[in-house]
Amino acid sequence: MYSVDLNSDMGESFGAYKIGNDEEIIKYVTSANVACGWHGGDPMVMERVVKLAKERGAAVGAHPGYPDLMGFGRRGMKLSAAEITNYMRYQIGALSAFTASYGMKLQHVAPHGALGNLCQYDYDVSEAICKAVYGFDRDLIIYYCAGAVLGEVAEGMGLRTAAEIFADRAYMDDLSLVPRGKPGAMITDEEEAIKRCVRMVKEGMVTTVSGKDVPVKGDTLCVHGDGEKALEFVRRICGVFEAEGIQVKNYQ
Amino acid sequence: MYSVDLNSDMGESFGAYKIGNDEEIIKYVTSANVACGWHGGDPMVMERVVKLAKERGAAVGAHPGYPDLMGFGRRGMKLSAAEITNYMRYQIGALSAFTASYGMKLQHVAPHGALGNLCQYDYDVSEAICKAVYGFDRDLIIYYCAGAVLGEVAEGMGLRTAAEIFADRAYMDDLSLVPRGKPGAMITDEEEAIKRCVRMVKEGMVTTVSGKDVPVKGDTLCVHGDGEKALEFVRRICGVFEAEGIQVKNYQ
Amino acid sequence: MYSVDLNSDMGESFGAYKIGNDEEIIKYVTSANVACGWHGGDPMVMERVVKLAKERGAAVGAHPGYPDLMGFGRRGMKLSAAEITNYMRYQIGALSAFTASYGMKLQHVAPHGALGNLCQYDYDVSEAICKAVYGFDRDLIIYYCAGAVLGEVAEGMGLRTAAEIFADRAYMDDLSLVPRGKPGAMITDEEEAIKRCVRMVKEGMVTTVSGKDVPVKGDTLCVHGDGEKALEFVRRICGVFEAEGIQVKNYQ
Amino acid sequence: MYSVDLNSDMGESFGAYKIGNDEEIIKYVTSANVACGWHGGDPMVMERVVKLAKERGAAVGAHPGYPDLMGFGRRGMKLSAAEITNYMRYQIGALSAFTASYGMKLQHVAPHGALGNLCQYDYDVSEAICKAVYGFDRDLIIYYCAGAVLGEVAEGMGLRTAAEIFADRAYMDDLSLVPRGKPGAMITDEEEAIKRCVRMVKEGMVTTVSGKDVPVKGDTLCVHGDGEKALEFVRRICGVFEAEGIQVKNYQ
Repeated sequence: MYSVDLNSDMGESFGAYKIGNDEEIIKYVTSANVACGWHGGDPMVMERVVKLAKERGAAVGAHPGYPDLMGFGRRGMKLSAAEITNYMRYQIGALSAFTASYGMKLQHVAPHGALGNLCQYDYDVSEAICKAVYGFDRDLIIYYCAGAVLGEVAEGMGLRTAAEIFADRAYMDDLSLVPRGKPGAMITDEEEAIKRCVRMVKEGMVTTVSGKDVPVKGDTLCVHGDGEKALEFVRRICGVFEAEGIQVKNYQ
Repeated sequence: MYSVDLNSDMGESFGAYKIGNDEEIIKYVTSANVACGWHGGDPMVMERVVKLAKERGAAVGAHPGYPDLMGFGRRGMKLSAAEITNYMRYQIGALSAFTASYGMKLQHVAPHGALGNLCQYDYDVSEAICKAVYGFDRDLIIYYCAGAVLGEVAEGMGLRTAAEIFADRAYMDDLSLVPRGKPGAMITDEEEAIKRCVRMVKEGMVTTVSGKDVPVKGDTLCVHGDGEKALEFVRRICGVFEAEGIQVKNYQ
Repeated sequence: MYSVDLNSDMGESFGAYKIGNDEEIIKYVTSANVACGWHGGDPMVMERVVKLAKERGAAVGAHPGYPDLMGFGRRGMKLSAAEITNYMRYQIGALSAFTASYGMKLQHVAPHGALGNLCQYDYDVSEAICKAVYGFDRDLIIYYCAGAVLGEVAEGMGLRTAAEIFADRAYMDDLSLVPRGKPGAMITDEEEAIKRCVRMVKEGMVTTVSGKDVPVKGDTLCVHGDGEKALEFVRRICGVFEAEGIQVKNYQ
Repeated sequence: MYSVDLNSDMGESFGAYKIGNDEEIIKYVTSANVACGWHGGDPMVMERVVKLAKERGAAVGAHPGYPDLMGFGRRGMKLSAAEITNYMRYQIGALSAFTASYGMKLQHVAPHGALGNLCQYDYDVSEAICKAVYGFDRDLIIYYCAGAVLGEVAEGMGLRTAAEIFADRAYMDDLSLVPRGKPGAMITDEEEAIKRCVRMVKEGMVTTVSGKDVPVKGDTLCVHGDGEKALEFVRRICGVFEAEGIQVKNYQ
């Protein structure tokens, strides 16, 4: 039996500002990556999303980022390893109070934005993140982009991991994502996107931009929840997964 | 055998900014009220203080405040009960990641500044704070100013409590503190301040500004750590406590 | 010849977060109240809105608020008069750099949210705001809700003023707005709302909730730009104003 | 007649947090680089420093930095040119409201911390900063570290400039500062430090770490105000300047 987790970034609204469509996407995903108040999210938003996840039976993970609300955590910041470790501790701990209050346990950690991008190849940053997780709760699962150094580092420290794949993104031969804006970066044909996902989950293979077939682990699929089109896609891929005998479920 | 806990507000530095003298005061207190990054403190500071507390055998509690770094949490803010509950969850949870990383358990929660002042008489605010604590960890002890509504509310919810007393402050008949600036607000004679503390701990009585003797619970004594004079006072009171057969210890 | 200024709150987006529809509403208003980065807005947003105003020939004013992005400046904060004055200086000055860069002059100041609400009746707060404006640029016009103490204080200091009226809100006998949520607070009938505006501008009279006719100054009308319905209303009221011989123009 | 300006970073305190000794150093400097609320400083602090400068006859300039209070503006951030320009506009404009309120004119702009460091060699960043100044007020003087690209760019745009020199730092052959921590980075011998300053101002020459004599412009000397030792040094260098016929004065 095949299985895959569906995750989405959520809880990124802030005060009077709304981003995303948490109320809808929560109906489809099995794991929610919840922003922790630094690049987005605030305690009111965090409670709302955790409550939604509880009601819908989705698992909750932390989606920590840089202390840069104005840049939504997408701008590079030069932080020391100790700063990264402590910033992760802070944010993961903060979210854990909300899951605890709703009788849930944090399931995973998925770094956000510019920090998340560094995890593709940066050992020191990956180690700083894993150190925070290891010290706080060894049961937490590290979500890493398939192929990223973060997965390697997490496993080296004995942490649980889940390799994340993307339906709408093309891969380089080393499994890094083709940067947005480059030709062929986005898989725009939905049919093809879904076929690629099914193959990644069942065969553990993906065809890269160079046309090469490369092995890939696909434990958890990242989906977007913004707009009706994105929701439609999620519904459709869930249908195909069912038909293909792929069970959608999280790690709890 | 009599006993009293010595607590102090700590970890209120922020980035390049230093407030307090954590390295020195930690040598005397048995419980540290650690700022959680909102009115003061940041994750680097939080780690440093938790590490200090661990080394010195002091217990760690959360000292959460308003989201107002510019006002050091001392300015009134009109927040809803839900906002207070969630802001408390966030800050307590954040700090708990640091204690967990150092193999410690959070001991208590002591609200800071303008929020703490409301706890003297405001049932809704007190309940909002206790609700956060109750949902997160029922073992946490609520520190409340002796006489404050917060203690009553916490006990009503079945939470553990500790009544906090002050060496250098005068009391009204209802045990609220005489506001700073009012005549007689501060107990400036050290000898007298120490005698009052001993009496509060051993006899459970204090003489108020009106000259009346009023019963008071003195579970934990708040001391300041700024400057050599404050440290000297702490050393002195510890000496007197020992001579008076009052054991200085926390709740762990 | 009658005339009225149309103003709207703008530039309240922040980073990746979008609020309002600045690109559309700027086509109709003659004065833009631009957020200054504290309750909303950031320097990128501020530049965008000032540029839009320049292109459309709208005047730009400052819309300063409390340092409370998380609460969108809508929550009460207990600030000293000196804090209010300096916070106003800071925000007004910050915006003035953008108007200067586009060869424009700031036209007015309109306090936002909870701070703005205090201006209805609070002399000290009104004075603290006017002091900031007076020291920075005596030509700036203070926008105040018709009937508010702020107008009185500003005129007492020799500042220029404009009385602001609302199309969709009902008035008490003292010209304070009927609080949202109270029965009759909103004028939901568009026809009636427009008629009331025309009367306020031409006759200087309004019928309050109690049924009484009360004199009111209507120099500038506040309109909303969120959603197609609001835009439709603005278009419609502009048409009626033209038919009624009311010129829509700002103070430049 | 020789002359030199003495400048110092000031107004970097924040809320309850104090950094520097503004009250003392203002007695000696002729130009104050005032933090603008992003890496340090807040409106209350800004007013206090501008008032001090007014009283003491010192000129005021803006010391803008990254939006990173937690890192005191010392950590690298990847910002776009447009972001830098608008962030500079915002901060310079904000400060200008305080100088205006005290009947002063802003004199200069001196970028802070990690942003300032980029100006040594980065044309795009330098241009982004100068663009903000040019659009806001063409009379403002750009303070740049002697040898830095920022000076070149500013002059290319027709802006006024002042080359900044340091008494306690060693120079490389290209006039960049020897990084702190490297051997010989600091000029620890006060006698020598003062002699170097006199030579830079009078002869326009400095001996670099490699022992080479290199031409250098020394328009403004940066001094520190933290601690009695720093103040003592400033007093001493002022005495030597007087004896050497070097007038200490700013650009107003």
